[in-house]
Amino acid sequence: MQFTAHELGLMLNGTVEGDPLVPVNQLAKIEEARAGSLSFLANPKYEQYLYTTEASVVIINNDQVLAEPVKSTLIRVPNAYSAITVLLEKYNTLKLHKTGIEQPSFIHPSATVGENVYVGAFAYIGPNVKVGNNCKIYPGCYIADDVILGDNVTLFPGVKIYFDCILGNNVIIHSGTIIGADGFGFAPAGDGTYAKISQIGNVIIEDDVEIGSNTTVDRATMGSTIIRKGVKLDNLIQIAHNVEIGSNTVVAAQTGISGSTKLGENCIIGGQVGIVGHITLAKGTQVQAQSGVSRTLKEEGKRWMGSPAFAYNDHMRSQIVFSRLPALEKRIDELEKIIKELTKDVH
Amino acid sequence: MQFTAHELGLMLNGTVEGDPLVPVNQLAKIEEARAGSLSFLANPKYEQYLYTTEASVVIINNDQVLAEPVKSTLIRVPNAYSAITVLLEKYNTLKLHKTGIEQPSFIHPSATVGENVYVGAFAYIGPNVKVGNNCKIYPGCYIADDVILGDNVTLFPGVKIYFDCILGNNVIIHSGTIIGADGFGFAPAGDGTYAKISQIGNVIIEDDVEIGSNTTVDRATMGSTIIRKGVKLDNLIQIAHNVEIGSNTVVAAQTGISGSTKLGENCIIGGQVGIVGHITLAKGTQVQAQSGVSRTLKEEGKRWMGSPAFAYNDHMRSQIVFSRLPALEKRIDELEKIIKELTKDVH
Amino acid sequence: MQFTAHELGLMLNGTVEGDPLVPVNQLAKIEEARAGSLSFLANPKYEQYLYTTEASVVIINNDQVLAEPVKSTLIRVPNAYSAITVLLEKYNTLKLHKTGIEQPSFIHPSATVGENVYVGAFAYIGPNVKVGNNCKIYPGCYIADDVILGDNVTLFPGVKIYFDCILGNNVIIHSGTIIGADGFGFAPAGDGTYAKISQIGNVIIEDDVEIGSNTTVDRATMGSTIIRKGVKLDNLIQIAHNVEIGSNTVVAAQTGISGSTKLGENCIIGGQVGIVGHITLAKGTQVQAQSGVSRTLKEEGKRWMGSPAFAYNDHMRSQIVFSRLPALEKRIDELEKIIKELTKDVH
Repeated sequence: MQFTAHELGLMLNGTVEGDPLVPVNQLAKIEEARAGSLSFLANPKYEQYLYTTEASVVIINNDQVLAEPVKSTLIRVPNAYSAITVLLEKYNTLKLHKTGIEQPSFIHPSATVGENVYVGAFAYIGPNVKVGNNCKIYPGCYIADDVILGDNVTLFPGVKIYFDCILGNNVIIHSGTIIGADGFGFAPAGDGTYAKISQIGNVIIEDDVEIGSNTTVDRATMGSTIIRKGVKLDNLIQIAHNVEIGSNTVVAAQTGISGSTKLGENCIIGGQVGIVGHITLAKGTQVQAQSGVSRTLKEEGKRWMGSPAFAYNDHMRSQIVFSRLPALEKRIDELEKIIKELTKDVH
Repeated sequence: MQFTAHELGLMLNGTVEGDPLVPVNQLAKIEEARAGSLSFLANPKYEQYLYTTEASVVIINNDQVLAEPVKSTLIRVPNAYSAITVLLEKYNTLKLHKTGIEQPSFIHPSATVGENVYVGAFAYIGPNVKVGNNCKIYPGCYIADDVILGDNVTLFPGVKIYFDCILGNNVIIHSGTIIGADGFGFAPAGDGTYAKISQIGNVIIEDDVEIGSNTTVDRATMGSTIIRKGVKLDNLIQIAHNVEIGSNTVVAAQTGISGSTKLGENCIIGGQVGIVGHITLAKGTQVQAQSGVSRTLKEEGKRWMGSPAFAYNDHMRSQIVFSRLPALEKRIDELEKIIKELTKDVH
Repeated sequence: MQFTAHELGLMLNGTVEGDPLVPVNQLAKIEEARAGSLSFLANPKYEQYLYTTEASVVIINNDQVLAEPVKSTLIRVPNAYSAITVLLEKYNTLKLHKTGIEQPSFIHPSATVGENVYVGAFAYIGPNVKVGNNCKIYPGCYIADDVILGDNVTLFPGVKIYFDCILGNNVIIHSGTIIGADGFGFAPAGDGTYAKISQIGNVIIEDDVEIGSNTTVDRATMGSTIIRKGVKLDNLIQIAHNVEIGSNTVVAAQTGISGSTKLGENCIIGGQVGIVGHITLAKGTQVQAQSGVSRTLKEEGKRWMGSPAFAYNDHMRSQIVFSRLPALEKRIDELEKIIKELTKDVH
């Protein structure tokens, strides 16, 4: 996609200074911008780059005084930062504006699809599925029997949703994420083999949830695995069967949450964290990256670290001593030697 | 899917008490059930919930005595727990009952497909592939040249199997899992760059294996990566080239096993474990979550923990002292001070 | 695929000794080979297996003297190791030789596709996409609007590339990997909820990069996430928004690199490593598996370990003392007891 400075000026109600016909086709930071880039100067701290940038077009504040000559075409607006935010959203909307049913796609006759919906080629919408209004089902998605999608749901290419799952409104799921596969449930059969336990629950994802790429959210054995309103999950996360994640909790990439564990609201969980099954984390709990949580955490708003995790500050202190362990051991050796001498002296 | 209490009573040979026409469309635990749910009471410990549950229908034992009035419709059976197990399996079978070849799908003319097979839309079955009887190939699966699938294999949507791989009978693979991609093999070329080593082996998956979602099992450089009979792998696991996993070994989510390592039979490996390459783990080895195994473990049936891992009990003891390290250091400071005083006194 | 000893002899300009019509359909190590296998003897250390192997055909050096009778058909060549390398590459090329546009596939009329390209069934090539010459787009891949692919790019089945991303020449991406999904960017809205920050940058992947299966590389918030020339990424890796990975750096499976972090050239990063955001790792940095890097590492070519990571050798020493912590604590107890006795004596 390409715009001229003139076109951008019109979109932003701004004043163009310099060549109005210069085209830009990408957005870049002012210090990294090359020819063909649009950039902006909102923070006076970066003013120096205005005089050296290779950006073809720079958006600046109306009241920006030029201390030196500028090569770029300028667009003056009341607030450069707001202007760029508006542009970002417009650009994103343009890129993600898809509508209509592409062919070939598979929509089962018993499925119902709302208004203004995009169904990409090779998408599969199974029996009795309900898709709300303004949903975008990108190419290669799979929606199994009896799944319900609210309004304004976006499933990026290749999302797979197993039968009976329920998604609320404004849910965004990125490519390759799997919702509702079987939980990892097997019963030892006594002879060393395992018998599969049928996993017949589902996954419920409430409104305003966003889930990254290649994450897996398993269906409940019975009942529901629940992702509450406003939760944000990053990429490559494992959510096991019957887990419940409280509203507005944020989980970073590659974290794993084991079966039947419940996270409170507004928790912040770092990347590569492991949380064992059948425990509860209080509201507002924060867990540092790579930690392992092995027991219920009852106090609200506390910060944890380590594997197994304990209080963040205490862990930091232990960690510092850990790095001096060889010295510590030598000091003990030394003490023992002296004591030996002393006790020889004394006795 | 929806059933009335009457229909369920017939399916279970049970006696209905209460409204036989009340419909249920999901299964829930008795303490969480809402209107429209079917629940059950098998464990007397939960009897209290029988009198407060919102479940529309509850399955109970014939000999269950009612201490208080019950709102739900009841279905009495000889054994509530067995009845629910039967129902779970029936429900699951109904949901997963798919058959026939959906269009559009791609089946190469040289491929052979057994009887009673389901091939979903957008599935791809390549040249010379052999698919056994009663297999289910869900939408969007890809099966490359010369792959062989036994009988009763289920590939959930979007499973990809590279050329030459072999799957036994009753194998279940969940969505997004990749079987047989190239192992991570590169030879330093001397100038800082790396040359790719051709990965021309395959993956062999024996009977009764189940693999979760978005797991990756790489093909061998030469020979085979082997997943033995009855192995259960969870989600987001990495199995590198030439690994061999012994029968009935269970591996939890997000664990990684590096190249050419061999796990014995009936091992239990926790989540987020890392195991280095070219080592062997004895039969029955147990590894705690988040541990890192860096050497061959020869003793059978032992439990390991930590990164690098050592004996579970020893690690637990070290871990406890780790949390007191700052105090330990202070005690050494104190001892040194006293010794200094003492030696001043003495000399 | 199946070859006779005679056919292999012709391919390798070798001399066949024994039954020229014996067929082989797989390659195996000489010590593991079964009937139907082709094997080779390049290293004299393995000569013993030549006399016991079940391989149907073995490639040996011209000057190999037979100390005992051999059951297998032999093919003599000047250099058995080179011969097998040639065969591996030929085999791989045969298996991966795909060409033409399979149907049904989706190629937007505004896309341009180079010469000698393979587009598998159910692949999707969106508006304004440019695909170079000799590219292979396997079944079920998705390439969004305005993406540019260089020459000789291979996308294995189910790779998804979001809009605006750019791939250089000779890039190989394995199944299930997601390029250019939104970075994990959310701004706290003050009421506990989070507002999405539009992610409008892209991903740039330079020449000769290979990426494994089910890895995720997020697009930049603004600007580009950059994977430099010759980088090799394994499976299930998380690369966050605005990360930059220097040329010829190698990253093992399940590692995660957080937002805006920059890795230098020729780094070697182990598996399951976590690297925090907004830091820089110097050229040639090596990080041990499962480590956590929490700060900028400025010295080139140094090796790090632990979580948080510090110098490899120091960490190894601390780790050894860690395993003796319970004993260390007892020694301190003992010292305190003696001191107490002593000070009683003295005072």
